Amino acid sequence: MTDAQDTGRPHGDPAPPAGTDTGHRPGASFHSMWKDLLPIGLASSSGGYRRFAWTAADTDCRAWFEHQARSRGLAYEVDRNGNQWAWLGDPAQGDAVVTGSHLDSVPDGGAFDGPLGVVSSFAALDELKARGATPSKPLAVVNFGDEEGARFGLACVGSRLMSGQLTPRNARELRDADGVSLARAMEAAGRDPLALGRDDDRLARIGAFVELHVEQGRLLAETPHAVGVASAIWPHGRWRFDFHGEANHAGTTRLEDRRDPMVTYATTVLAARKKARLAGALATFGKIAVEPNGVNAIPSLVRGWLDSRAADEATLAAVVEEIERAAAERGERDGVEVRVTRESFTPVVEFEHGLRDELGKVLGGVPVLPTGAGHDAGILSQDVPTAMLFVRNPTGVSHSPAETATEDDCVAGVAALADVLEGLACR
Amino acid sequence: MTDAQDTGRPHGDPAPPAGTDTGHRPGASFHSMWKDLLPIGLASSSGGYRRFAWTAADTDCRAWFEHQARSRGLAYEVDRNGNQWAWLGDPAQGDAVVTGSHLDSVPDGGAFDGPLGVVSSFAALDELKARGATPSKPLAVVNFGDEEGARFGLACVGSRLMSGQLTPRNARELRDADGVSLARAMEAAGRDPLALGRDDDRLARIGAFVELHVEQGRLLAETPHAVGVASAIWPHGRWRFDFHGEANHAGTTRLEDRRDPMVTYATTVLAARKKARLAGALATFGKIAVEPNGVNAIPSLVRGWLDSRAADEATLAAVVEEIERAAAERGERDGVEVRVTRESFTPVVEFEHGLRDELGKVLGGVPVLPTGAGHDAGILSQDVPTAMLFVRNPTGVSHSPAETATEDDCVAGVAALADVLEGLACR
Repeated sequence: MTDAQDTGRPHGDPAPPAGTDTGHRPGASFHSMWKDLLPIGLASSSGGYRRFAWTAADTDCRAWFEHQARSRGLAYEVDRNGNQWAWLGDPAQGDAVVTGSHLDSVPDGGAFDGPLGVVSSFAALDELKARGATPSKPLAVVNFGDEEGARFGLACVGSRLMSGQLTPRNARELRDADGVSLARAMEAAGRDPLALGRDDDRLARIGAFVELHVEQGRLLAETPHAVGVASAIWPHGRWRFDFHGEANHAGTTRLEDRRDPMVTYATTVLAARKKARLAGALATFGKIAVEPNGVNAIPSLVRGWLDSRAADEATLAAVVEEIERAAAERGERDGVEVRVTRESFTPVVEFEHGLRDELGKVLGGVPVLPTGAGHDAGILSQDVPTAMLFVRNPTGVSHSPAETATEDDCVAGVAALADVLEGLACR
Repeated sequence: MTDAQDTGRPHGDPAPPAGTDTGHRPGASFHSMWKDLLPIGLASSSGGYRRFAWTAADTDCRAWFEHQARSRGLAYEVDRNGNQWAWLGDPAQGDAVVTGSHLDSVPDGGAFDGPLGVVSSFAALDELKARGATPSKPLAVVNFGDEEGARFGLACVGSRLMSGQLTPRNARELRDADGVSLARAMEAAGRDPLALGRDDDRLARIGAFVELHVEQGRLLAETPHAVGVASAIWPHGRWRFDFHGEANHAGTTRLEDRRDPMVTYATTVLAARKKARLAGALATFGKIAVEPNGVNAIPSLVRGWLDSRAADEATLAAVVEEIERAAAERGERDGVEVRVTRESFTPVVEFEHGLRDELGKVLGGVPVLPTGAGHDAGILSQDVPTAMLFVRNPTGVSHSPAETATEDDCVAGVAALADVLEGLACR
C-alpha cells in the first residue's frame, strides 16, 4: 500500500494497486499496465467508469489490450463475437489454458471489476516468463466483450454468443437507450454483426478457463487470505416490471380518480426487499424509467427492473413469484396493470470440481466461496472446465467507485494466477 | 361533436372542437386556428405534445401566434420576458382588458391545456367584431412563455418574471436536463436574457386579466354547465427529495450491508399518498432520477420530486412535513441520507371578488370552483385583478393526450369569454 493510500486518498479513487519497483517481484509489470488503463472512460463528475460496449471508451480499452498483446509478441486476434485474444503458443495445438476477464463497466463502476482480471492475466504471463517456466500447452489472455450489459441490457454478450447461449439474431436486435441496435453499434466499431454465433472450433481448443476477479463481497476480508477460489455462482436473472397507469395532472386529479403506477411500483420495491430477506435471497430495483417523468404529471408508465438471485433456483423462483404477486395485488387496488417480462436468466453454476480441487492444491488451502455475481466464466462453464479466483476487497463494495483492492492483494492475485497457469500449462 | 368523435376516435386524439360552418355562430374562427396549431410538437409515439420553452416546437407555436395577431391587424409585440402580445387599441391608454393563456405543454401533454385559452381569446375578439361591439378600452391577447416549466423545472416563468416573482438572475441560471441554461436557450431563440425583469409599465396598463382554461377535473362534468368561474387556486409547491445511499453490486451485497436509497424512496412515495389522503390534500411523485440507474447496481442516489397541494397553506405545510419525517425515519433505518429542497412554492390565490362577481353577473349563475393547478392568472393576481373561466372536460383528465373538451363546450367557452370582454371593455 502506498503512502498516498495511507494519508487520506478519497475512498472512491481507484487505488494504485502495484508498486513502481521493477525487480523480480510477482506483478512487477502490473502497475504500468494499470496506470495506462486508469484514465479510460473515467467520469470526473462521479469518479466512476463508463466503459460501455462499442463506445469510444470501449475502443480505447481494446486498443490497450491489443498493445499489451503485441508488445509481448503474443498472437493477437478478435473472434467472430468481438472478444479479444492474445495467444502464447499455437492455438491449433488444443487443450489451451485461457485466462482473462472483461474491460467494460457498469454505469459509474469501479476500476477493478473486470480490468483486474485482464491486467493480472498479462502480469501472470510476465511472471511465468520471469520464473523461466516453459508452457507445454498454448496459453491465452481473453477480453470478453460487453460483460456488464450496461448499454444493451443483457450481460455477458460476448461469451453468450461464443457459447451459443444467445442467438445472433437476438443479439443483433438488442437496443440501447437511444434505440441503437447492437448490430449498428458493432458495425460502427468496425465489426461484422453477420459473423456472430457459436464458435465451436474455438471452444474445442480450450482445455480450461480461469477468471481472476475482485471479490464483490466481504468474505475474504474476514480471513487472512488475499485470494480465494469460487465454488459456485448463484442462479440469477433480470425481470422487467411494467406498471401501466394513466397520465394525469398532479394538481387537479383527486386521489380516488388516479391510476398512479408510481404507487404500485413503490409497493413492489418494498415487497421485493421483504420477500428476499425472508428467503435469504437478494432482490434489487436499481433501474427505473418513467413516462412522462414530469414533476406535475401522474406517470402513465413506470418501468422498473428487478435483479434477483438466490443460492438455488427453487428459492429464486419462489421469491420472484411472490414479488410478482405483491405487484399484481397492489396494481388491482391502484387500477394499474402490471406486466412482467423475464429479460435474462442464468441457472446455478457449480464450477468444475476437478479443476477447482487442482487450484486448491496449487494454492494450498485457500478459502472456497460462492458468489451472487454472473461472470463470463459462468457462461463458459457449460462448454469447458472453468474456475475463478477472487482477490480480497476490503470494502466489499462493487459496481461503484468505492470498489477497491490493496496493492499487496493485487500482487498476491497475480502470483496465485501465475501458480495456477504454471500448474495447468507447464507440466 | 363531429361524427368522427361518435364513431370511435381514439380517446387520446385531440378533438376537432369546432365546426367548419362560417356563419355568425360564436367561435366560427375557432376551428381553423385550432387545426393550424394541432400538428405542432405532436409526438407520434405517445400521441401527446412536447412543446417545451424555447425549442423548435415553441418557436412554431409563437409563429402561429404572430400570424394570428398580424392577420387581424392587431399590434404585435414580444415583451422583455418573452411573452407575446396582440393589441386592439392603444395600450398607452391604460385600464386594458387582457385575455390569453400559454401555448407550451408538459411532456406528452394534451392539446387543450393552454392553447384552448389562446385560441379562444382570438376567437372571442372575432366574436366581438361580429357582434359589432366597440371596445372603449384597449384589449389584448397574451401568450405567456414557459408556463408548464417542463424544460427548466419552474412553472410560469414568463409571468413570474413580468411580476418580479422570479429574479432575472435566478431565471437565467435555470438549467434543462442537458445543462443548457435558460439564458442560452433564450439567446438561441433570438431573445435577450439581459432584458428580463419586472415590467412595471406593462403591469400598470392592465386593468383586468381573464384566462380561459380547460377544466382539469370533473366538477363541471357533473353539472349542466359548459363553463365555470374560478374561486381560488390551491397553494402548491415542488419539493426535491435527494436520497443518498451507496452504490454497490446488486448480486453480491448482502441486504444487511446495503444502503439502498430506492427502498427509502419507495417508503416515501407510499407515505406521501397516505398523508395526503388523510389530510384531503394532493401529493404526487411523478419525476425521478436515479444514479447510476443500472439493473445490477444498487443506486448511489435516488432523486424524487414531490408535487403537493392543499386547500390551505397550513394543511399543505403539515402534509409535506409529515412526508419529510417519514422519509427521514426510514432513511435512518436504511443508512440513507435524505435532503429536501423546496424548489418552488405558490401561496393560495383567491381571485379578486369584484371581478369574479362581475363575471358571474355577465354569465348568469355559472358554477364557481376552486382548482389545484397553478396558472399565470394566479401569478398576475398579486398585481392586477384577475379571473379565470373553465371549460368542461368530460374525462377530467389533464396533462395527458386523454385531455379533451367537446366542440359545443369550446364554442360555449368562446361565447362566454366574448361576453366577459364585452362586459368589461365595451361599456
